[in-house]
Amino acid sequence: MEEIKKALVTGGAGFLGSHLCKRLLADGYEVTALDNLFTGTKENIYELLDDKRFSFVLHDVTQPFWGQFDEIYNLACPASPIHYQKNPVETTKSSMLGTMNMLELALKTKARMIHTSTSEIYGDPLVHPQIEEYWGNVNTIGLRSCYDEGKRVAETLCADYRRQYGVDVRMVRIFNTYGPKMHPKDGRVISNFIMQALANRDITLFGNGSQTRSFQYCDDLIEAIRRYMDLSEKKIASFFGGKEIDGRVTPAVPVINTGNPGEYTIKQLAEEILRQLPESKSKIVYRPLPSDDPKRRKPDITLAKALLGWEPKVPLAEGIAKTIEYFRSRR
Amino acid sequence: MEEIKKALVTGGAGFLGSHLCKRLLADGYEVTALDNLFTGTKENIYELLDDKRFSFVLHDVTQPFWGQFDEIYNLACPASPIHYQKNPVETTKSSMLGTMNMLELALKTKARMIHTSTSEIYGDPLVHPQIEEYWGNVNTIGLRSCYDEGKRVAETLCADYRRQYGVDVRMVRIFNTYGPKMHPKDGRVISNFIMQALANRDITLFGNGSQTRSFQYCDDLIEAIRRYMDLSEKKIASFFGGKEIDGRVTPAVPVINTGNPGEYTIKQLAEEILRQLPESKSKIVYRPLPSDDPKRRKPDITLAKALLGWEPKVPLAEGIAKTIEYFRSRR
Repeated sequence: MEEIKKALVTGGAGFLGSHLCKRLLADGYEVTALDNLFTGTKENIYELLDDKRFSFVLHDVTQPFWGQFDEIYNLACPASPIHYQKNPVETTKSSMLGTMNMLELALKTKARMIHTSTSEIYGDPLVHPQIEEYWGNVNTIGLRSCYDEGKRVAETLCADYRRQYGVDVRMVRIFNTYGPKMHPKDGRVISNFIMQALANRDITLFGNGSQTRSFQYCDDLIEAIRRYMDLSEKKIASFFGGKEIDGRVTPAVPVINTGNPGEYTIKQLAEEILRQLPESKSKIVYRPLPSDDPKRRKPDITLAKALLGWEPKVPLAEGIAKTIEYFRSRR
Repeated sequence: MEEIKKALVTGGAGFLGSHLCKRLLADGYEVTALDNLFTGTKENIYELLDDKRFSFVLHDVTQPFWGQFDEIYNLACPASPIHYQKNPVETTKSSMLGTMNMLELALKTKARMIHTSTSEIYGDPLVHPQIEEYWGNVNTIGLRSCYDEGKRVAETLCADYRRQYGVDVRMVRIFNTYGPKMHPKDGRVISNFIMQALANRDITLFGNGSQTRSFQYCDDLIEAIRRYMDLSEKKIASFFGGKEIDGRVTPAVPVINTGNPGEYTIKQLAEEILRQLPESKSKIVYRPLPSDDPKRRKPDITLAKALLGWEPKVPLAEGIAKTIEYFRSRR
């Protein structure tokens, strides 16, 4: 009989964490989800609780956690400005201490680890689209710094635990991702628009709506993460560390972008949502562009494609349909 | 009788920490120096140990420390590449955990705190000279990241403990500083050149020696730090937070550069050292420029001048003379 693999998912009751737990159970794993339920919710994992291979542990990753796992997926951190700015100090701690605690666990137990970083480490980028070698443009002392700098130093810790202690840790920088189980009030454009359309409230576009965004459907991300974890350390070593891949020189340590490079204007997004909700009485209205309008980010996914044989598959219309269905079911 | 003020200096047995302790004792303080003696040495504080107002505590700032102080000076962190790359993980921890522990102490005891940051948070800067509003250009996963990113997230923690909890913390970004008690083997250009000249070994210049550096004498820095600590919170509040000062808009939270904006070529530095050591048999020799030659950095000190009525006073020749005297006395 084959031994059942054990996986730990921090932030396991969050938007992406709950999708990952579900996928790991489907892949035959025993899964332990850690969450402090600050932005994650028990509801996100209701459907998993009947599976005897699934455990939920209410735990804050800023505190050490010990257990024996084959794989650690480090996802814990509030990720939308509206949440991470509620308690900036704890946001930074959840990245820096949470990642440190998971790296210590991986080191002591020889687990393989994937750390989820973010396109926010590129800040307000001066390079488009963003490649992994770009160093970013981030303010150390601003209102978004708690997230951005916490995530940056988490990468540094991963790189150095790998170099100094040989921890088999791999990093993925996640670009804008959406789907069912997104927090309906996370303040992001997709959840905002769908919630407005479902409630027959006007859909507010800022500026003329011609600014573009990239949107990755959650299942595409989870697929990339699973493939990444399954790669042998030998394969990782042969790919990273300054190798030439498609005319690019790979980063010193394993780090890849994942995201959907397709670009849509905010107006196109609003129109697609209204097209799928013909019964909605919402109209598109225009408001002045605020000075801190999030900057354009678009992933270069050359490395992920080459390493994982992966690319995003779910078209925007399909992903939006599933997201609308989810929000509608919860009203 | 006036109550004696109590100061805590982390990294108190280091190069700058030991100078600061000496100055605080001269200013009438009771002083506690914390140090794990990783790069600091007991020898740096021999001259202070007979003063009954001075205490040395062997303590690693990555662990919490409790005590009652009026003022906290947070200096602990290996600061030269040769040291901070010996144990990159601990370097990052000493910044991120050390600063967090000191902020917690300041919060619980209502102490005022100065956090010493660094010009390294600007990384390989694209703006010259560096102003406080510049966000920097730093790699998250390189060999210098353990220092740079640890120091960056320490700033973020300071900014958020201030905004979220009202901790009276002020930051200073220190540019290249030299003087007696520098570690003779820290790999920096001033200590290298003086050690070579004293040992009659050739002085190695990389490239043609025309690259420039700025050098701040330690006493100038200590003067700036003391003045900064003495300012009332009211004065700080009236200066920072987007005020217009000399055509500049001040940062949201208190942060100032200190350094000496005077620029010297590496060749001028070598010549000055040889001029002061006419008995040395060393010759200047030229070697190819390594690819990772440290980048040019030069502080803009407009804000420090306006806030503190301060500017560096010690000319290079005088500072070099004192530094040579120190290295000679220890041979």
